[in-house]
Amino acid sequence: MALNLGFVDSIVFDANGLVPVIAQQFDSGEVLMMAWMNRAALEATLADGQVRYWSRSRKQLWRKGERSGQFQRLVELRVDCDGDTLLLRVDQTGAACHTGQRSCFFRGFLDGDWHTLSEPISDPEALYGDDR
Amino acid sequence: MALNLGFVDSIVFDANGLVPVIAQQFDSGEVLMMAWMNRAALEATLADGQVRYWSRSRKQLWRKGERSGQFQRLVELRVDCDGDTLLLRVDQTGAACHTGQRSCFFRGFLDGDWHTLSEPISDPEALYGDDR
Repeated sequence: MALNLGFVDSIVFDANGLVPVIAQQFDSGEVLMMAWMNRAALEATLADGQVRYWSRSRKQLWRKGERSGQFQRLVELRVDCDGDTLLLRVDQTGAACHTGQRSCFFRGFLDGDWHTLSEPISDPEALYGDDR
Repeated sequence: MALNLGFVDSIVFDANGLVPVIAQQFDSGEVLMMAWMNRAALEATLADGQVRYWSRSRKQLWRKGERSGQFQRLVELRVDCDGDTLLLRVDQTGAACHTGQRSCFFRGFLDGDWHTLSEPISDPEALYGDDR
């Protein structure tokens, strides 16, 4: 690929080679999820605009939506003042959350406990089958 | 205080007792910053609505704005599907960033390098003096 990725050197990855990433729907401003990238995930994302993350539990790269079809297309990449957190402004297809909700942040604290603020927009079983 | 904080037990703190926290301006949707909380920071925040974080470098609680006067008032607390990331919808006084910018995410990637997308709204020296 022809991309000059030298700018990635200015990003501060942690001791595990990861950087926290916030995904935000570019037009509505909704915060969809928080996940992690390593350098390879970021470079692959920049190469074709399809967002990849690093799964800390599975220890592998994953393309957001590869199983569910609920992809994220990168619209704009931002970095914070310290260079150690990324903000991805994305266009999210369908549900960002494996629960079927649009955003992973669908629970809010009210009157001493968590409450569900928004219902699923997709059936998680239809998205993932039994193999969630 | 009279708050029932048993719900905090459902939050998944990491091996260092911390949870990543995204601060978002409640009305505009702007993502302001990412920082960390321990249990004490969250409980203190909930007690009076003034947002506290845990400084990993200084290893102490800090009240956002305690030196700069650029406070964050908690409007709504959300948690993600896995219980391991918090989203704080806040009302930010002035600049969230120590650089004087409204948001810490003021640099965007364009044509192979980072570019400043928004200028400071306050003079950092006026906010912090020499002791930044």
